[in-house]
Amino acid sequence: MNQHHPAAAVFADRHLGPRGRETAAMLDQLGYDTMDALVEAAVPKSIRTQRPLGVPEARSETEVLAHLRDIAGRNVLKRQMIGQGFSDTHTPAVIRRNVLESPGWYTAYTPYQPEISQGRLEALLNFQQTVEDLTGLPIANASLLDEATAVAEAVALMWRASRAKTGYVVLDADLFGQSLAVARGRAEAIGLPVVVTGLDSGLRSGLDAYVSDGGTLPDGDLVGVVVQQAGASGRVLDARGLVTEAKESGALVTVATDLLALTLLTSPGELGADISVGSAQRFGVPLFYGGPHAAYMAVRKGLERQLPGRLVGVSVDADGAPGYRLALATREQHIRRERATSNICTAQALLAIVAGMYAVYHGPEGLRAIAERVRARASAVAGTLRGAGVEIEHDVFFDTVRAVVPGRAAEVASAAADAGYNLWTPDADHVQIACDETTTAADVEAVTRSILTTLEGSVPAEAGGSGMPRPDLPAELSRTTSYLTHPVFHQHRSETSLMRYLRKLSDKDLALDRTMIPLGSCTMKLNAAVEMEAISWPEFAGIHPYVPADQAEGYGELISALEAQLADITGYAAVSVQPNAGSQGEFAGLLAIKDYHRSRGEEARDIVLIPASAHGTNAASAALAGLRVVVVKTADDGEILLDDLRAKLEQHGPQVAAIMITYPSTHGVFEEHVREVCDLVHAAGGQVYIDGANLNALVGLARPGEFGGDVSHLNLHKTFCIPHGGGGPGVGPVGVAEHLVPFLPGNPLAPSDTTGEDTRAGTPISGTDHGSAGILPISYAYLALMGPDGLTQATKTAVLTANYVSSRLAGHFPTLYTGPNGLVAHECILDLRELTAKTGVTAADVAKRLQDYGFHAPTLAFPVAGTLMVEPTESEDLAELDRFVDAMIAIRAEIDDVAAGRWAVEDSPLRGAPHTAASVSATEWGKPYSRETAAYPLPSLRHDKYWPPARRIDDAHGDRNLVCSCPPVEAFEAPGTEN
Amino acid sequence: MNQHHPAAAVFADRHLGPRGRETAAMLDQLGYDTMDALVEAAVPKSIRTQRPLGVPEARSETEVLAHLRDIAGRNVLKRQMIGQGFSDTHTPAVIRRNVLESPGWYTAYTPYQPEISQGRLEALLNFQQTVEDLTGLPIANASLLDEATAVAEAVALMWRASRAKTGYVVLDADLFGQSLAVARGRAEAIGLPVVVTGLDSGLRSGLDAYVSDGGTLPDGDLVGVVVQQAGASGRVLDARGLVTEAKESGALVTVATDLLALTLLTSPGELGADISVGSAQRFGVPLFYGGPHAAYMAVRKGLERQLPGRLVGVSVDADGAPGYRLALATREQHIRRERATSNICTAQALLAIVAGMYAVYHGPEGLRAIAERVRARASAVAGTLRGAGVEIEHDVFFDTVRAVVPGRAAEVASAAADAGYNLWTPDADHVQIACDETTTAADVEAVTRSILTTLEGSVPAEAGGSGMPRPDLPAELSRTTSYLTHPVFHQHRSETSLMRYLRKLSDKDLALDRTMIPLGSCTMKLNAAVEMEAISWPEFAGIHPYVPADQAEGYGELISALEAQLADITGYAAVSVQPNAGSQGEFAGLLAIKDYHRSRGEEARDIVLIPASAHGTNAASAALAGLRVVVVKTADDGEILLDDLRAKLEQHGPQVAAIMITYPSTHGVFEEHVREVCDLVHAAGGQVYIDGANLNALVGLARPGEFGGDVSHLNLHKTFCIPHGGGGPGVGPVGVAEHLVPFLPGNPLAPSDTTGEDTRAGTPISGTDHGSAGILPISYAYLALMGPDGLTQATKTAVLTANYVSSRLAGHFPTLYTGPNGLVAHECILDLRELTAKTGVTAADVAKRLQDYGFHAPTLAFPVAGTLMVEPTESEDLAELDRFVDAMIAIRAEIDDVAAGRWAVEDSPLRGAPHTAASVSATEWGKPYSRETAAYPLPSLRHDKYWPPARRIDDAHGDRNLVCSCPPVEAFEAPGTEN
Repeated sequence: MNQHHPAAAVFADRHLGPRGRETAAMLDQLGYDTMDALVEAAVPKSIRTQRPLGVPEARSETEVLAHLRDIAGRNVLKRQMIGQGFSDTHTPAVIRRNVLESPGWYTAYTPYQPEISQGRLEALLNFQQTVEDLTGLPIANASLLDEATAVAEAVALMWRASRAKTGYVVLDADLFGQSLAVARGRAEAIGLPVVVTGLDSGLRSGLDAYVSDGGTLPDGDLVGVVVQQAGASGRVLDARGLVTEAKESGALVTVATDLLALTLLTSPGELGADISVGSAQRFGVPLFYGGPHAAYMAVRKGLERQLPGRLVGVSVDADGAPGYRLALATREQHIRRERATSNICTAQALLAIVAGMYAVYHGPEGLRAIAERVRARASAVAGTLRGAGVEIEHDVFFDTVRAVVPGRAAEVASAAADAGYNLWTPDADHVQIACDETTTAADVEAVTRSILTTLEGSVPAEAGGSGMPRPDLPAELSRTTSYLTHPVFHQHRSETSLMRYLRKLSDKDLALDRTMIPLGSCTMKLNAAVEMEAISWPEFAGIHPYVPADQAEGYGELISALEAQLADITGYAAVSVQPNAGSQGEFAGLLAIKDYHRSRGEEARDIVLIPASAHGTNAASAALAGLRVVVVKTADDGEILLDDLRAKLEQHGPQVAAIMITYPSTHGVFEEHVREVCDLVHAAGGQVYIDGANLNALVGLARPGEFGGDVSHLNLHKTFCIPHGGGGPGVGPVGVAEHLVPFLPGNPLAPSDTTGEDTRAGTPISGTDHGSAGILPISYAYLALMGPDGLTQATKTAVLTANYVSSRLAGHFPTLYTGPNGLVAHECILDLRELTAKTGVTAADVAKRLQDYGFHAPTLAFPVAGTLMVEPTESEDLAELDRFVDAMIAIRAEIDDVAAGRWAVEDSPLRGAPHTAASVSATEWGKPYSRETAAYPLPSLRHDKYWPPARRIDDAHGDRNLVCSCPPVEAFEAPGTEN
Repeated sequence: MNQHHPAAAVFADRHLGPRGRETAAMLDQLGYDTMDALVEAAVPKSIRTQRPLGVPEARSETEVLAHLRDIAGRNVLKRQMIGQGFSDTHTPAVIRRNVLESPGWYTAYTPYQPEISQGRLEALLNFQQTVEDLTGLPIANASLLDEATAVAEAVALMWRASRAKTGYVVLDADLFGQSLAVARGRAEAIGLPVVVTGLDSGLRSGLDAYVSDGGTLPDGDLVGVVVQQAGASGRVLDARGLVTEAKESGALVTVATDLLALTLLTSPGELGADISVGSAQRFGVPLFYGGPHAAYMAVRKGLERQLPGRLVGVSVDADGAPGYRLALATREQHIRRERATSNICTAQALLAIVAGMYAVYHGPEGLRAIAERVRARASAVAGTLRGAGVEIEHDVFFDTVRAVVPGRAAEVASAAADAGYNLWTPDADHVQIACDETTTAADVEAVTRSILTTLEGSVPAEAGGSGMPRPDLPAELSRTTSYLTHPVFHQHRSETSLMRYLRKLSDKDLALDRTMIPLGSCTMKLNAAVEMEAISWPEFAGIHPYVPADQAEGYGELISALEAQLADITGYAAVSVQPNAGSQGEFAGLLAIKDYHRSRGEEARDIVLIPASAHGTNAASAALAGLRVVVVKTADDGEILLDDLRAKLEQHGPQVAAIMITYPSTHGVFEEHVREVCDLVHAAGGQVYIDGANLNALVGLARPGEFGGDVSHLNLHKTFCIPHGGGGPGVGPVGVAEHLVPFLPGNPLAPSDTTGEDTRAGTPISGTDHGSAGILPISYAYLALMGPDGLTQATKTAVLTANYVSSRLAGHFPTLYTGPNGLVAHECILDLRELTAKTGVTAADVAKRLQDYGFHAPTLAFPVAGTLMVEPTESEDLAELDRFVDAMIAIRAEIDDVAAGRWAVEDSPLRGAPHTAASVSATEWGKPYSRETAAYPLPSLRHDKYWPPARRIDDAHGDRNLVCSCPPVEAFEAPGTEN
């Protein structure tokens, strides 16, 4: 019997690529008899853990699904009328099925390789266009992590743009509580004073009130003002005067707002605002117990180079056709490090795509109809309550009604919850009722009946049907300008059309469902279907982040267990899942260190030592935390130069807050002397931050918390199977040693809203206590499915696949750095510099040429220019690894052809790559290589060919001619229309 | 504001393609002011209904999902240990998400156009290979409707193959009850006598026992024997002697079996059987309350031309590369009509694909491991029970244990159900416990504990853990031969690999998620995502068809409501959803007519009048029902020739059982005189069968039951949104007038198993009472979402789109038949015969050329050779209709180029179509037209190009060289490997 492999018995057998004979063949290539022998040789004994993983034994897919259904059953689903930045919404089923539940979308990587990312770049451009149109500002990014951090980013932007040395920012007191908490924390970290005061009646009177209340205005000028429209209290104000007043005083103005409200309200751009931020959650993204949701930021012309986050722009490809790509990358942390506009990398791209498609599907008339219905429902609530004698605080509102119920707010809310409705109680005297797309007339009746029953003991006979007629919005607040006029917002109104549009876009892209994505340091492993199932269940997707704890017991259990398991895996005392991206985890970890030093009276420790090879995000996060960066040199072999470290510690000793290292290092090797590095820093009084980006090489073998780390952040979207989603969602938990636990992120809401004896009192990092809570079931499921043995086997297999690729390519592309016994860790850096010097063929040429072979490129030029970093992960089987190796060997032969003079580099298939179907089937060819060489350089491509939808895209052109909105359709008609 | 359309307010706005200005523009093209004016002109007043639709008002997507969750909540999910042909199974999540829930798979059409169906043809070939390997027989089809009908088809096959005039078939009494019921019903319909007797101890002794029990052997020879392995009672027998005995007596032998059992048991082929049938359900297809599941049939060499159903075979394309397509189409009903091997069309293809992929994913070693675990569980059950003194009837079994519990079966089963386990009680004295892939050791313990508690009042202390050790299978029954040796069953063991394989296959195909599929008479409309959601829920997917009624109240409610609504829509007294395909609905309807005549003493009525233009299935179904076909001529305008009808009625009057007509006719027109046709037939004492294939032109406008029909079948996969799934699942309910209600299909299980006062006592048509119950939520949701207005609007819109296409193409391809006012109904037949005569360009050339334009071809050569029939449906918007029209006009210009002598027809892009990417990018071109003309004949294709994966496939070659198993991988390496 042709039996290559043993039967798959447990989930790990499905998660792992190589098995049976495959594994044996790979070990044979490396000269080891067993996996354990390889691992012994590759991983330094000094870092190995002695303690087995403390996660539960593996369970089957069926068992884990049943277990998750149990957990889901302990969340209680009620109608959510809490608002505060989180509104229930109908996710169109066509979008849920064909985006959120489609591997073509959710397994995609960040679109750094634009030619194979045209679909999701177009989808993100739709998101940007939606934000630009609705905010009335010309340039929007795609996207930010949540509304609270978006407000914080706007504050930082205003501060940067002001170029002032001293100054302060004013925040309107009617911002959402989480926005205030996060923005204050961030401002404090960079030493920017913040004044919080009511701005309803104008800037001057707000500041006067602040001073007369005993506040003192900080030194310097007012550099910026943030106001929210509609406010947390529901009030809609005419901000025109406020904006004018602020601009006259030389300040920049940010308006935090709500995309749905903007279909009816005058836009921030029309008001003269410089910046607008907000959450796009209610555009079809489930509540998810607080996240992941996409936030946005739009700015006026002149501020675009100050934007944080990713920005999709339009450029041209080598044939002159329009092509999308990420614009102005030079703002970003991976280029500018500590001088970046932000530390954001992963940024909720998948959720931004959902929100953009929601706008595409509904179009302007549909969005406006939804907004009008929401406002009508809120008006009906207000009318009924007012009709029964309840005082309603604001006359002008969009979706949220604020009722005055002196001393009885808790009682009203509790009764409403019993009736199935969650309300918001900002204080003891007010209750707020927020309407949304899902609110029905029956909801209005039921919730008002509950409130009135509580307040009066009985419903007045006339209360049910009567009430104030819906008033029109005041003319000065009503939007008169058009929006979403681009054809894309009018073409896909039928489900059939939207389904095809989504398919068309995703077909343009290469995601994990078609090929390995061998990105160094990004760990593009399997996102198993079973892991993804639970996140669509209403009992996970439909919970508001501010529900009472007894409605979220399932979440509570899942999050506690996940945090405990991650703490065990990493060897730390505790983990917080609050940071909703790796960058935020880093920031949280650095703040914990900073606060810890401060708590011991060592405020002077404000230097972070960062090796030259570190991720740029490290430096950017340090800057955001108000820490200074000092670079530590690395040796030729990629290791930290201990002498330089000693010298830096000597020089900066009492100022050293921490060292940030990555382990295994970004050079893809297990450094032998990591313990020594940690010891030296500890001896100098510093803390050790171990970046968890490469944790996939450690799980089950070593624990950062055991070999010297005080803090690490993890990337659940790397090691723990959260899909990348084309650039988010991410989850970046932070783990800390015992002495840092009190400095873990605190709840962004007032402590009174937290439950139990939470000792975590650090600066809040995200807008909600549990960050991207809604997708945590994915990682939870992964751990439950794999168990301790499966997880450890995955790590070993990741080491095996990386070494296999490195070994097979050794004669073609040498691996730059190796560790013990000439082995790499879980990734390898292929050094092309000598070939480039000899032939002119660059690493970028190889990256683009790989697209013709059907592959996503490895990481380009990080951490070393002129190289490609390959991380195969444990999920790729031998056939796929060999397909990649064969492609690389074939490319090496093409480089040799250049060297041999067969083709000039400019005329080579390498420089010509990628080749589109249109280009190889054009009557005119005129290349020195054949069409077949261009398109089918290996025979296997005949049966499985991916066609890049664009030729090489010109980055510089796009940055010189910045266009970040949807191009007119005519732009696509220019080339190649003749037969 | 650029506001083309009103906001989408209800689901119908998403289901329908054209809206607002689009509708106006289309009406303008046709010269009508309003939809109603168009419909008045198109639809004869004489057939219009006066009564509005009696379905509930439309509800929103959210409301319908909530309502379905309510219904699902009234089904009770227990562990299913009933067996009897339905075993619980783990559907791998990767298959559920990427096949069952992926529009690329489920919206595909039957692979009649092989070039754009290579993916699903390969998937079906994997299914065939699985069946061939496991049954040990060389040719398997893909697929049949359920095991019971597969047994019936085998009986009919043996009868056909015997060519005897008299003779009989013996069925083993240990066949599943539903197999016996359905096979007897079918045999009776064609006048084939059947003997049911126990064959455990051999053929001769079985027949002797039958005779000594008072049975009399029919005239003629024994033509066939059907035995089941394992039997309904669980027994596994050594059938070698029986097979030999039967063959020696000249009979054919069919073994009904179980694919999972065959991984351990000697295969039917090795035993010498001619035929094997069974259900592939337990290969990953949910229980679905009885269906849809794929059944299979495999035969020995020499019987392949007798096979019913579809058969995938390997042929070559125009470049000599291997290409798959449906083989031996000449067996099928659409060609051979009443002389076809069966009436089957739609045949559970999607479920066969799931089963085939389950085999791909597990591989031989995985399947064997599952089978061994199942057998071990059953052995543990038997051991525990026997150890406690309970008699176990069979020593050799696979998954089912039959315990002897004299007089206490009901009590034991009821207690087990209370403990969460459903068992099977074949009679008062036996209870059967069937194990499956999902049975755990804990289940074994719990179910045996329950049984023993019931039997003895308490569990003996030693019963829990003790019992008989698992005995090995007797050597003579044990399989020693290998299976699933093809590489495809070894390559995709990791989830990543299977996910990519599924994506690769579906990418080869054109389904509704990429293009309109303008198939006349097939109504390829939107299958909305929201309609599809509920079928994956465990409360619908996990119910065994034989659970007690109180565990399926949700299903009961849904099915009753759906039947009632369909009855209202069609104007009949009652509808039965039992038929699981349109062909079966037809068969059921004809049997009802036949039984009705018989009940009135009019057995002589055995002629069915069928117009020349009818679907071939009509004639094939009539033959299956034992009725004779007399053809009625149609006039040049497509209408039934009343004079010929009168003449035929004159000639055959007292023998006329019925007329079968399609309305609107297969000519795509509303015939004015349909009432007259009905009246004439009724006057002659015949019944009127109105084929519901074209019901999409009637819903809300007319009711067949009102304008003359006595019976209709509907196709829920046409009018009511069940997706086509590449050739099934189908649902073909039959609706009848009051006098025929007693003849609707009865429950295939004994009447004692039915609930309530069911008056339906006709021949059972399917293996379970509700046929494809598991997908009925789709149609139910569609009706609930659309409501009466939406449904009627859909019909009107379908008439609009067909007339729009017909009108725009009028100057290019004339529409062959039109009805009142020169309008068509919901489809139009484009007549190419004159162009063909003039230029040699055939309708097939146009169909293939449309692939280059990115379209699935319309229906080719039905009902008129040399034509293309186009049915756009209501779901296509104007942009897509125009894209199709533009393609057709461009093709017409290409035909004109042939006429003008620009190219010879053999050298034209029409004959060269379809063009693969490889062919247009080959160095050698050598065609008189350009590469761009081949690939990008319209500029829009530059932005959205589908590449056919094969050039034109040679049907005849494949039938001459029949290969119906997976070709070796080397077959694909021949052409085009050079650079």
